[in-house]
Amino acid sequence: MKAVVIGSTGYGGIELIRLLQGHPNAEIGAMVSSSSAGKPLGEVYPHAAHLTFTLEEMDVDGIAEVGDVIFFATPPGVSGKWAPTFLERGKIVIDLSGDFRLGNPDTYQQWYQREPAPVEWMERAVYGLSEWYGEQVAQATLIANPGCYPTATLLAVLPLLKEGLIQTSPLVVDAKSGVSGAGRGLSESKLYCEVNENLYPYKIGVHQHTPELERFAEAESGEPVKILFTPHLIPMNRGILTNVYAQAKPGVTGHDVADCYRSYYENTPFVRLKPEGEWPQTKHVRGSNYCDLGWHVDERTGTVTAVAVIDNLMKGAAGQAVQNLNIRMGWPETAGLEGLPLYP
Amino acid sequence: MKAVVIGSTGYGGIELIRLLQGHPNAEIGAMVSSSSAGKPLGEVYPHAAHLTFTLEEMDVDGIAEVGDVIFFATPPGVSGKWAPTFLERGKIVIDLSGDFRLGNPDTYQQWYQREPAPVEWMERAVYGLSEWYGEQVAQATLIANPGCYPTATLLAVLPLLKEGLIQTSPLVVDAKSGVSGAGRGLSESKLYCEVNENLYPYKIGVHQHTPELERFAEAESGEPVKILFTPHLIPMNRGILTNVYAQAKPGVTGHDVADCYRSYYENTPFVRLKPEGEWPQTKHVRGSNYCDLGWHVDERTGTVTAVAVIDNLMKGAAGQAVQNLNIRMGWPETAGLEGLPLYP
Amino acid sequence: MKAVVIGSTGYGGIELIRLLQGHPNAEIGAMVSSSSAGKPLGEVYPHAAHLTFTLEEMDVDGIAEVGDVIFFATPPGVSGKWAPTFLERGKIVIDLSGDFRLGNPDTYQQWYQREPAPVEWMERAVYGLSEWYGEQVAQATLIANPGCYPTATLLAVLPLLKEGLIQTSPLVVDAKSGVSGAGRGLSESKLYCEVNENLYPYKIGVHQHTPELERFAEAESGEPVKILFTPHLIPMNRGILTNVYAQAKPGVTGHDVADCYRSYYENTPFVRLKPEGEWPQTKHVRGSNYCDLGWHVDERTGTVTAVAVIDNLMKGAAGQAVQNLNIRMGWPETAGLEGLPLYP
Amino acid sequence: MKAVVIGSTGYGGIELIRLLQGHPNAEIGAMVSSSSAGKPLGEVYPHAAHLTFTLEEMDVDGIAEVGDVIFFATPPGVSGKWAPTFLERGKIVIDLSGDFRLGNPDTYQQWYQREPAPVEWMERAVYGLSEWYGEQVAQATLIANPGCYPTATLLAVLPLLKEGLIQTSPLVVDAKSGVSGAGRGLSESKLYCEVNENLYPYKIGVHQHTPELERFAEAESGEPVKILFTPHLIPMNRGILTNVYAQAKPGVTGHDVADCYRSYYENTPFVRLKPEGEWPQTKHVRGSNYCDLGWHVDERTGTVTAVAVIDNLMKGAAGQAVQNLNIRMGWPETAGLEGLPLYP
Repeated sequence: MKAVVIGSTGYGGIELIRLLQGHPNAEIGAMVSSSSAGKPLGEVYPHAAHLTFTLEEMDVDGIAEVGDVIFFATPPGVSGKWAPTFLERGKIVIDLSGDFRLGNPDTYQQWYQREPAPVEWMERAVYGLSEWYGEQVAQATLIANPGCYPTATLLAVLPLLKEGLIQTSPLVVDAKSGVSGAGRGLSESKLYCEVNENLYPYKIGVHQHTPELERFAEAESGEPVKILFTPHLIPMNRGILTNVYAQAKPGVTGHDVADCYRSYYENTPFVRLKPEGEWPQTKHVRGSNYCDLGWHVDERTGTVTAVAVIDNLMKGAAGQAVQNLNIRMGWPETAGLEGLPLYP
Repeated sequence: MKAVVIGSTGYGGIELIRLLQGHPNAEIGAMVSSSSAGKPLGEVYPHAAHLTFTLEEMDVDGIAEVGDVIFFATPPGVSGKWAPTFLERGKIVIDLSGDFRLGNPDTYQQWYQREPAPVEWMERAVYGLSEWYGEQVAQATLIANPGCYPTATLLAVLPLLKEGLIQTSPLVVDAKSGVSGAGRGLSESKLYCEVNENLYPYKIGVHQHTPELERFAEAESGEPVKILFTPHLIPMNRGILTNVYAQAKPGVTGHDVADCYRSYYENTPFVRLKPEGEWPQTKHVRGSNYCDLGWHVDERTGTVTAVAVIDNLMKGAAGQAVQNLNIRMGWPETAGLEGLPLYP
Repeated sequence: MKAVVIGSTGYGGIELIRLLQGHPNAEIGAMVSSSSAGKPLGEVYPHAAHLTFTLEEMDVDGIAEVGDVIFFATPPGVSGKWAPTFLERGKIVIDLSGDFRLGNPDTYQQWYQREPAPVEWMERAVYGLSEWYGEQVAQATLIANPGCYPTATLLAVLPLLKEGLIQTSPLVVDAKSGVSGAGRGLSESKLYCEVNENLYPYKIGVHQHTPELERFAEAESGEPVKILFTPHLIPMNRGILTNVYAQAKPGVTGHDVADCYRSYYENTPFVRLKPEGEWPQTKHVRGSNYCDLGWHVDERTGTVTAVAVIDNLMKGAAGQAVQNLNIRMGWPETAGLEGLPLYP
Repeated sequence: MKAVVIGSTGYGGIELIRLLQGHPNAEIGAMVSSSSAGKPLGEVYPHAAHLTFTLEEMDVDGIAEVGDVIFFATPPGVSGKWAPTFLERGKIVIDLSGDFRLGNPDTYQQWYQREPAPVEWMERAVYGLSEWYGEQVAQATLIANPGCYPTATLLAVLPLLKEGLIQTSPLVVDAKSGVSGAGRGLSESKLYCEVNENLYPYKIGVHQHTPELERFAEAESGEPVKILFTPHLIPMNRGILTNVYAQAKPGVTGHDVADCYRSYYENTPFVRLKPEGEWPQTKHVRGSNYCDLGWHVDERTGTVTAVAVIDNLMKGAAGQAVQNLNIRMGWPETAGLEGLPLYP
């Protein structure tokens, strides 16, 4: 089984390469990078200098020949344009970008402010939130790997919505991400001196992960859901922590919430539930595919707080992409993903 | 005018010393530290080794003799016990701890889990949120300096509550603090290796700043207010960012919110309002007494988000304490506090 | 093959557990921690909460029954006392502490300021610098795993000393380490607020790794060698960078140095040589067992600078310990150590 | 007294603005920034948004009209071109760049790889290492403010060289700097994710501060001196720590070195000597103009290690520039520089 990574030199791409390199069933067929084509991988990423790959141009025929599965770890707009070609040649495509997640071209255009992918493929894409849509993933040819924020947030909120434990409105999501989520592109706001000892929200109410959250929140709750989503930049490399704040339905207790989570996640390999009164920490999942979940039901205010952490490059990107590949191929779901978090 | 700092070797204490050292009207009469009495200041804080102070025991007579104003930068329980003695001798007391903030011994006992200060002094204390209670501060003998989280949060939310622009319930506060807020005491959770590349919430719904928030939210809104307050630890030394999430009253627009803030803060020296569509960053106030305020009114969800940042050791502790001293003494409110933030 | 880790709750211990957990040939028989015996591992290290181990007392019989190889990841003095018992029962012991590295009880007593291990075992211990003493390691029962600083420094300097390319005196080593090298024990100097945005040297000329460096520098050069060793604390979790400054022997060029390194390390799996004019970065080896080596021969001053980086918990501790286990057991040297560095 | 800052939007420039803003004798006449001319300062630096300056074009006549002293906080090549114009109009120029430090156009061309400033001005410039050349600074019209690395290094080594306590060769300088030393310009190597948890040397033996070090080392020792200078990038914003390694002259003891330093620095306001057996930490001077000095005389190896720390933007740039202005104007040397370091 040969995998091709398109967008190898972003942080998501190089994380995919790390995982594929250690995978028992897959191997890397080619690394594509339009910005660094022709360079040895080690020139762009010296930490991987012992691998002898050369970064390649985006050459559809070449890629189709060497690859059985094609990963897109690219900025918006790239997979929307190129994925159909590979799909038509019978390849499996796992897309880490947002191009196929929304199911609806209009919503895409509104929130991403760019031309959507072909509607027929947008509709056929399976949303790869592994714990929720694993059965469809197992049959999919085009897997839309979830966004980093939605992965953490949806894992936390979907059980509560589906079981009707919380009001669907107002739903407030306050999320915090390490800087690698913003990629390796140059901008003043990502300079070390600007980020270090700093903290701030951005894109309040207008972040493109909002409709992705609402789409699946509505699907599972069966009601219209509007979410105010506020992301923050945190001075660390990896990690997302997301808090969902909702009003409890009358009579709902901490016990109910705990039971609800247990019924959904007790047998999943990557979602770990925190004991009562403890909350997740991003460092506890760093470098791994785990999602740690905690919660608080506040009787004074009637508020349910659900807290989830993931490594944004792992369960939030490359890790879940490999998990989806495993599911799709019928391999053990944890293949290549068994490593403990790197601590400290 | 001589000041005595009790609790000189905590982070709040040493920040007070930095400010008093550069103050045009005040000077330091004595530095008290029960844990390090007898040591030169420079042994505990080598960055201040050129100051030739020796840390002193808690000696009431000695302190009363040398000091006109007594600052308590101490853990809970200390000022509650000792402040009355100094007050009875006619000293001004500015207390940076929570002992006199709640106005109500029962509430104190419930949230702080310890013996409250004498009720008569608790009731006479003036809450030193300078921009809101400056007139009372100007007359006060006992000033209860606000907590770090409440300073930022109340500055953001009080105008909206007072003018009735938001629903009083549910009110969700998601706040993030640098590590210095947890003090210099030893604990595994504050070790560099544990904090670095980490992020997590703590004390959800049970933090002792909750009743402080509710007290003044109720006072200004004239209604009962219940707040779910969730603090987080962030891998940085200084800085607090707090988000208040509330439902807008019908018809309230971004314009209304902007006007409201302007009417309260346009002429205050330390609250700076962000332009529309920009939000505050903690680094923009680091080392200074500023509070930067931004907001977002989200029409899709009807949510108002108010965002405030402060330096927790400055406007959230020592800076506001000096601001209150200035107000109390009739000095320019900004005396000793004019410095620009240290950037980057 | 069952391994027992003594000292499981230090940073070196938990890294060993991470590696053993992913090792194809070994498995963990027991985790010993005198400070946390009886607790589940997940209580001390929530990132590993899905492992169901309970930390155990130091029980010699129990350990001897379950373990084929015993790792000591303990403070000085522990293995010196307990390792002989296990050795006498025919166990393989890999000691990550300094108790058996110096070969000489007097030197140990002088630099470690404590009672040395039994001299007969000190003399029989094999120094586990894998690339240099792999043949002896393959036969050893007691392996003294090198210190973190000496691993990086000796890999950089031994080829130059052995081939006589540099003067043996003066030899200056300026080394920098992340904070995890100082362990998880509580001290004010390791608090986040004290370390962050800080940098300083410590123990100049008196660090206990000095005699370890000199012992093997002398062994390979065949001459007496005195080294001034200066370690520094760096605000990061993992990583060591060490610079060796030496005077070049007359006529020695950059070419000679490059050839020398190539002849020693070209076929080793974990030492990677940097291209001319590039130097190693700690982040390029983080989380991996690699040692990246670079150098500079300065004609103006006649100085050779050799630069090495490792992850102090990997090649500088747990990684090399597993590498030594692999060598000792005749397994592939890289078993369980193939992972790419975690980047970024 | 009006000051103009050319290059206001670099990190050195904005630090100058912070200092001038709080200076009792000087005020800011204009802020010049060719890259951001026309923008309000607060748009480029929101932390200073309450200052109402607009950034201006490089307009010689306008600047000459408004300014008595002109600070250049610009990249190499700018002051070399423009400073003479202002000097000829009778202005005082304080240049924070390297254009006038070397006294010799050939050396400049060799190490900076660019066109030197006019030789007559290069020769007339006074090197502004305040503690050493204050008398000349007091008379100067063109002050070449020292580089950040040379400031720390020369303060540490000049007394030892001048008093003949150390051999002049080999002289090894291993220096470490926070990232702000590299400025605010965009480059991948300065991105947060690349710097955080990283550490590496750069420009070994070829850094442009080498000839600056050698020039004044030779001047004070009276002998030719060749220095191997190795700078490192450290994951922190501010701070330089520099180690000078030299061989002690026969018979030189720790006492001699201590006496030597005391005789030079006992009465200087900004150089603080560490007690025996303690070494400086960058955090102890952060945000201040102090230089903390420590040392170690190692009898085993005959090596003297001198350790100095400064804040690279303060004593290493803007702070020393203001100190030089104070000296030049006959103001108290510490005017505007009395602030304690910002700790923690």
